[in-house]
Amino acid sequence: MQLYDCATAPSPRRVRIFLAEKGISIPTRQVDLRGREQLQPAFRAINEDGTVPVLVLDDGTAIADAVAICCYLEDLQPEPALIGRTARQRALTIACNRQLERDGFYAVMEALRNSTPGLKNRALPGPDDYQQIPALAERGRARVNSFFARLDRRLAATAFVAGESYTIADITAFITVEFAQRAKLPLPPNYPHLARWLANQSARPSAKA
Amino acid sequence: MQLYDCATAPSPRRVRIFLAEKGISIPTRQVDLRGREQLQPAFRAINEDGTVPVLVLDDGTAIADAVAICCYLEDLQPEPALIGRTARQRALTIACNRQLERDGFYAVMEALRNSTPGLKNRALPGPDDYQQIPALAERGRARVNSFFARLDRRLAATAFVAGESYTIADITAFITVEFAQRAKLPLPPNYPHLARWLANQSARPSAKA
Repeated sequence: MQLYDCATAPSPRRVRIFLAEKGISIPTRQVDLRGREQLQPAFRAINEDGTVPVLVLDDGTAIADAVAICCYLEDLQPEPALIGRTARQRALTIACNRQLERDGFYAVMEALRNSTPGLKNRALPGPDDYQQIPALAERGRARVNSFFARLDRRLAATAFVAGESYTIADITAFITVEFAQRAKLPLPPNYPHLARWLANQSARPSAKA
Repeated sequence: MQLYDCATAPSPRRVRIFLAEKGISIPTRQVDLRGREQLQPAFRAINEDGTVPVLVLDDGTAIADAVAICCYLEDLQPEPALIGRTARQRALTIACNRQLERDGFYAVMEALRNSTPGLKNRALPGPDDYQQIPALAERGRARVNSFFARLDRRLAATAFVAGESYTIADITAFITVEFAQRAKLPLPPNYPHLARWLANQSARPSAKA
């Protein structure tokens, strides 16, 4: 197996943290997103989408999505379970993870990609160019605030994002909070539960991945 | 179990088609989205997000996401396998399904919700109101065209969206094409592979679900 990675991008970091939590080591190859290597024919032959991460299996199969890669790794090595152990836990973890992506990760992406000068025609990842929409950057910022508030409420009741154990949903929330900082949307000071959870996440060895 | 459903909305239809393909029957309860029942306290006590579908288990657990519900049903009744049978198939199906959602379903949602007069402050589902952004409706329409073109290319090579067998990815693509028609984005006439696949999908008994 080989992981096409980019050390500075949030989506491949999800997979690196997942791997670290599993204790799995896979050779990685850095893709130069800043130099737009992901949009060159050589990389698009591996992933037409022009995005990272991509996990390439020994038979050449390319899995070109962070969550799909995590599901594959969970199937390969079930312990420690990071996507739930029972059908009920799995469903709740998946639902929570998807909600965090919709309301958190995509909101940060809207805010960042529609306002960063270096991403003028790159308002969306992928092969097609789309112009920035300033109103969408503004909407993204409002949504991130709402996301923080809701995550704090959730973490008032549970130790981890999807319940009583550490899961992929914690990884998604963690990289979303980091990604928000990069979009100049730091954590507001009035969310004690979120702050406590974030300190715990940052102290895990996998946070260095 | 009980499924909170809405006969006219695309996301619960994904679950109804999945159930029909599995041959599973579950009591459903209609939620009046037009009357904004999903935003009332009674429904938000079931799903804070104010969205359908929601599957409520006999112990009261609420699974509030279409794909998470499908994963639960697949765990409960593995055959016919609709999310892949091996780790590799599962990963490829999940990756494909997520790509269709990102580039297809969300694009149609952008186009429809940012232009429909009846959805003035409802540019996103969920409890928070967001104003329509006309430039986002326009971007959504461009993305849907790109989605159709890519889906046609994919279906030139395979019988089904994620490969050689029918999966959840076909359901996602099917309801996305239907949803696009509702957004006045009918299938262009120059996509023969997509047209052939669509005719096959429409002829399946589950299309009536």
